[in-house]
Amino acid sequence: MTTRTEAGFTAVVTTRVDGPETQRTVADLFLKGAEGWVRHRTGFISATVHLSTDGTRVVLTADWKDEASYDEFFETDTDRAALGREMQALPGLVSGPELTRCTPYRTIVAATGE
Amino acid sequence: MTTRTEAGFTAVVTTRVDGPETQRTVADLFLKGAEGWVRHRTGFISATVHLSTDGTRVVLTADWKDEASYDEFFETDTDRAALGREMQALPGLVSGPELTRCTPYRTIVAATGE
Repeated sequence: MTTRTEAGFTAVVTTRVDGPETQRTVADLFLKGAEGWVRHRTGFISATVHLSTDGTRVVLTADWKDEASYDEFFETDTDRAALGREMQALPGLVSGPELTRCTPYRTIVAATGE
Repeated sequence: MTTRTEAGFTAVVTTRVDGPETQRTVADLFLKGAEGWVRHRTGFISATVHLSTDGTRVVLTADWKDEASYDEFFETDTDRAALGREMQALPGLVSGPELTRCTPYRTIVAATGE
Protein backbone atom coordinates (compact mmCIF):
# COMPACT_ATOMS: atom_id res chain seq x y z
CA MET A 1 0.00 0.00 0.00
CA THR A 2 1.22 3.48 -0.80
CA THR A 3 -0.36 6.52 0.78
CA ARG A 4 0.27 10.21 0.74
CA THR A 5 0.89 11.47 4.20
CA GLU A 6 -1.45 14.12 5.58
CA ALA A 7 1.50 16.40 6.19
CA GLY A 8 2.27 18.96 3.52
CA PHE A 9 5.62 19.92 4.98
CA THR A 10 8.31 18.20 7.01
CA ALA A 11 11.14 19.99 8.78
CA VAL A 12 14.18 17.73 9.11
CA VAL A 13 16.54 19.30 11.65
CA THR A 14 19.98 17.80 12.18
CA THR A 15 22.25 18.83 15.06
CA ARG A 16 25.79 17.51 15.48
CA VAL A 17 27.20 17.15 18.95
CA ASP A 18 30.35 15.94 20.70
CA GLY A 19 28.81 12.84 22.26
CA PRO A 20 25.91 11.16 24.07
CA GLU A 21 25.70 13.63 26.95
CA THR A 22 25.21 16.69 24.75
CA GLN A 23 23.04 14.59 22.45
CA ARG A 24 20.62 13.95 25.30
CA THR A 25 20.68 17.62 26.34
CA VAL A 26 19.86 18.76 22.80
CA ALA A 27 17.12 16.12 22.47
CA ASP A 28 15.57 17.29 25.73
CA LEU A 29 15.66 20.93 24.58
CA PHE A 30 13.77 19.98 21.41
CA LEU A 31 11.29 18.03 23.54
CA LYS A 32 10.86 20.95 25.92
CA GLY A 33 9.86 23.14 22.99
CA ALA A 34 7.65 20.57 21.33
CA GLU A 35 5.82 19.61 24.51
CA GLY A 36 5.74 23.07 25.97
CA TRP A 37 4.35 25.14 23.16
CA VAL A 38 5.02 23.94 19.60
CA ARG A 39 2.30 21.29 19.77
CA HIS A 40 -0.23 24.06 20.38
CA ARG A 41 0.70 25.91 17.18
CA THR A 42 -1.72 25.90 14.26
CA GLY A 43 -0.64 23.45 11.60
CA PHE A 44 1.66 21.36 13.78
CA ILE A 45 0.95 17.62 13.36
CA SER A 46 3.69 15.66 15.10
CA ALA A 47 7.42 15.51 15.66
CA THR A 48 9.86 12.76 16.52
CA VAL A 49 13.24 13.32 18.13
CA HIS A 50 15.80 10.70 17.06
CA LEU A 51 19.19 9.98 18.61
CA SER A 52 21.87 8.64 16.29
CA THR A 53 23.22 5.37 17.64
CA ASP A 54 26.79 6.70 17.43
CA GLY A 55 25.94 9.52 19.85
CA THR A 56 26.92 12.36 17.50
CA ARG A 57 23.62 13.62 16.10
CA VAL A 58 20.07 14.50 16.98
CA VAL A 59 17.63 14.29 14.07
CA LEU A 60 14.26 15.95 14.55
CA THR A 61 11.53 15.29 12.00
CA ALA A 62 8.49 17.53 12.36
CA ASP A 63 5.35 17.22 10.25
CA TRP A 64 3.30 20.32 9.59
CA LYS A 65 0.12 20.93 7.62
CA ASP A 66 2.02 23.21 5.25
CA GLU A 67 5.16 25.28 4.98
CA ALA A 68 3.31 28.53 5.74
CA SER A 69 2.28 27.20 9.18
CA TYR A 70 5.89 26.30 9.90
CA ASP A 71 7.17 29.70 8.79
CA GLU A 72 4.57 31.48 10.87
CA PHE A 73 5.69 29.47 13.90
CA PHE A 74 9.38 29.91 13.22
CA GLU A 75 9.23 33.64 12.66
CA THR A 76 6.87 34.61 15.46
CA ASP A 77 7.74 32.24 18.31
CA THR A 78 9.94 34.06 20.79
CA ASP A 79 10.20 30.96 23.01
CA ARG A 80 11.69 29.10 20.04
CA ALA A 81 14.28 31.81 19.53
CA ALA A 82 15.26 31.67 23.21
CA LEU A 83 15.56 27.89 23.09
CA GLY A 84 17.71 28.20 19.96
CA ARG A 85 20.09 30.53 21.79
CA GLU A 86 20.25 28.10 24.71
CA MET A 87 21.19 25.31 22.28
CA GLN A 88 23.83 27.44 20.53
CA ALA A 89 25.46 28.14 23.89
CA LEU A 90 26.07 24.44 24.65
CA PRO A 91 29.85 23.78 24.71
CA GLY A 92 29.28 20.33 23.15
CA LEU A 93 27.42 21.61 20.10
CA VAL A 94 29.43 20.83 16.95
CA SER A 95 27.14 22.25 14.25
CA GLY A 96 23.54 23.01 13.53
CA PRO A 97 20.70 22.82 14.12
CA GLU A 98 20.58 22.54 10.31
CA LEU A 99 17.12 22.69 8.76
CA THR A 100 16.18 20.83 5.59
CA ARG A 101 12.80 21.94 4.30
CA CYS A 102 10.98 18.95 2.79
CA THR A 103 7.77 17.91 1.13
CA PRO A 104 6.63 14.37 1.95
CA TYR A 105 6.49 12.47 -1.32
CA ARG A 106 5.14 9.05 -0.38
CA THR A 107 4.76 6.85 2.69
CA ILE A 108 5.00 3.07 2.41
CA VAL A 109 3.73 0.81 5.17
CA ALA A 110 4.52 -2.81 5.98
CA ALA A 111 2.70 -5.47 4.00
CA THR A 112 1.82 -7.25 7.25
CA GLY A 113 -1.91 -7.29 7.89
CA GLU A 114 -3.02 -6.64 4.32
CA MET B 1 0.95 14.15 24.97
CA THR B 2 4.28 12.41 24.64
CA THR B 3 4.50 8.86 23.42
CA ARG B 4 7.28 6.49 22.61
CA THR B 5 7.05 5.40 19.02
CA GLU B 6 6.64 1.68 18.34
CA ALA B 7 9.76 1.72 16.18
CA GLY B 8 12.99 0.69 17.84
CA PHE B 9 15.16 1.87 14.97
CA THR B 10 14.95 4.55 12.31
CA ALA B 11 17.18 4.71 9.26
CA VAL B 12 17.56 8.30 8.04
CA VAL B 13 19.02 8.21 4.54
CA THR B 14 20.07 11.45 2.85
CA THR B 15 20.97 11.64 -0.84
CA ARG B 16 22.24 14.83 -2.46
CA VAL B 17 21.47 15.44 -6.12
CA ASP B 18 22.00 18.07 -8.79
CA GLY B 19 18.38 19.17 -9.05
CA PRO B 20 14.69 18.30 -9.16
CA GLU B 21 14.90 15.84 -12.05
CA THR B 22 17.47 13.59 -10.38
CA GLN B 23 15.69 14.14 -7.08
CA ARG B 24 12.52 12.62 -8.50
CA THR B 25 14.45 9.73 -10.04
CA VAL B 26 16.14 8.93 -6.72
CA ALA B 27 12.83 9.22 -4.85
CA ASP B 28 11.21 6.82 -7.30
CA LEU B 29 14.06 4.33 -6.90
CA PHE B 30 13.56 4.34 -3.12
CA LEU B 31 9.84 3.88 -3.67
CA LYS B 32 10.41 1.03 -6.09
CA GLY B 33 12.40 -0.78 -3.43
CA ALA B 34 10.04 0.01 -0.59
CA GLU B 35 6.90 -0.94 -2.49
CA GLY B 36 8.44 -3.85 -4.33
CA TRP B 37 10.04 -5.82 -1.58
CA VAL B 38 11.18 -3.91 1.52
CA ARG B 39 7.66 -3.69 2.94
CA HIS B 40 7.55 -7.47 3.00
CA ARG B 41 10.67 -7.76 5.16
CA THR B 42 10.34 -8.82 8.78
CA GLY B 43 10.59 -5.85 11.11
CA PHE B 44 9.81 -3.16 8.54
CA ILE B 45 7.16 -0.75 9.83
CA SER B 46 6.95 2.20 7.43
CA ALA B 47 9.02 4.59 5.39
CA THR B 48 8.49 8.09 4.06
CA VAL B 49 10.35 9.56 1.10
CA HIS B 50 10.79 13.34 1.41
CA LEU B 51 11.88 15.80 -1.29
CA SER B 52 13.72 18.88 -0.10
CA THR B 53 11.95 21.98 -1.34
CA ASP B 54 15.18 23.30 -2.87
CA GLY B 55 15.42 20.25 -5.14
CA THR B 56 18.84 19.11 -3.92
CA ARG B 57 18.10 16.28 -1.48
CA VAL B 58 16.01 13.21 -0.92
CA VAL B 59 15.52 12.29 2.72
CA LEU B 60 14.19 8.82 3.45
CA THR B 61 13.09 7.99 6.98
CA ALA B 62 12.39 4.30 7.57
CA ASP B 63 11.05 2.88 10.82
CA TRP B 64 11.97 -0.67 11.77
CA LYS B 65 11.14 -2.84 14.76
CA ASP B 66 14.81 -2.96 15.71
CA GLU B 67 18.28 -2.46 14.30
CA ALA B 68 18.84 -6.21 13.86
CA SER B 69 15.88 -6.41 11.44
CA TYR B 70 17.32 -3.55 9.44
CA ASP B 71 20.80 -5.12 9.33
CA GLU B 72 19.38 -8.45 8.26
CA PHE B 73 17.54 -6.71 5.43
CA PHE B 74 20.48 -4.56 4.41
CA GLU B 75 23.02 -7.38 4.35
CA THR B 76 20.94 -10.07 2.69
CA ASP B 77 18.78 -8.20 0.19
CA THR B 78 20.31 -8.59 -3.28
CA ASP B 79 17.57 -6.44 -4.85
CA ARG B 80 18.60 -3.62 -2.53
CA ALA B 81 22.21 -3.93 -3.60
CA ALA B 82 21.21 -3.79 -7.28
CA LEU B 83 19.06 -0.73 -6.68
CA GLY B 84 21.96 0.89 -4.83
CA ARG B 85 24.21 0.38 -7.85
CA GLU B 86 21.53 1.86 -10.13
CA MET B 87 21.40 4.92 -7.90
CA GLN B 88 25.18 5.30 -7.78
CA ALA B 89 25.27 5.27 -11.60
CA LEU B 90 23.00 8.31 -11.92
CA PRO B 91 24.97 11.22 -13.45
CA GLY B 92 23.08 13.69 -11.26
CA LEU B 93 23.97 12.05 -7.97
CA VAL B 94 26.11 14.43 -5.88
CA SER B 95 26.67 12.34 -2.73
CA GLY B 96 25.11 9.57 -0.71
CA PRO B 97 22.94 7.81 0.01
CA GLU B 98 24.25 8.55 3.50
CA LEU B 99 22.76 6.49 6.33
CA THR B 100 22.30 7.82 9.86
CA ARG B 101 21.35 5.03 12.26
CA CYS B 102 18.92 6.36 14.84
CA THR B 103 16.90 5.38 17.85
CA PRO B 104 13.56 7.19 18.17
CA TYR B 105 13.61 9.06 21.46
CA ARG B 106 10.17 10.62 21.76
CA THR B 107 7.23 11.54 19.52
CA ILE B 108 5.10 14.57 20.27
CA VAL B 109 1.69 15.03 18.70
CA ALA B 110 -0.46 18.11 18.24
CA ALA B 111 -2.52 19.27 21.20
CA THR B 112 -5.57 19.52 18.92
CA GLY B 113 -8.28 17.07 19.92
CA GLU B 114 -7.12 16.50 23.48
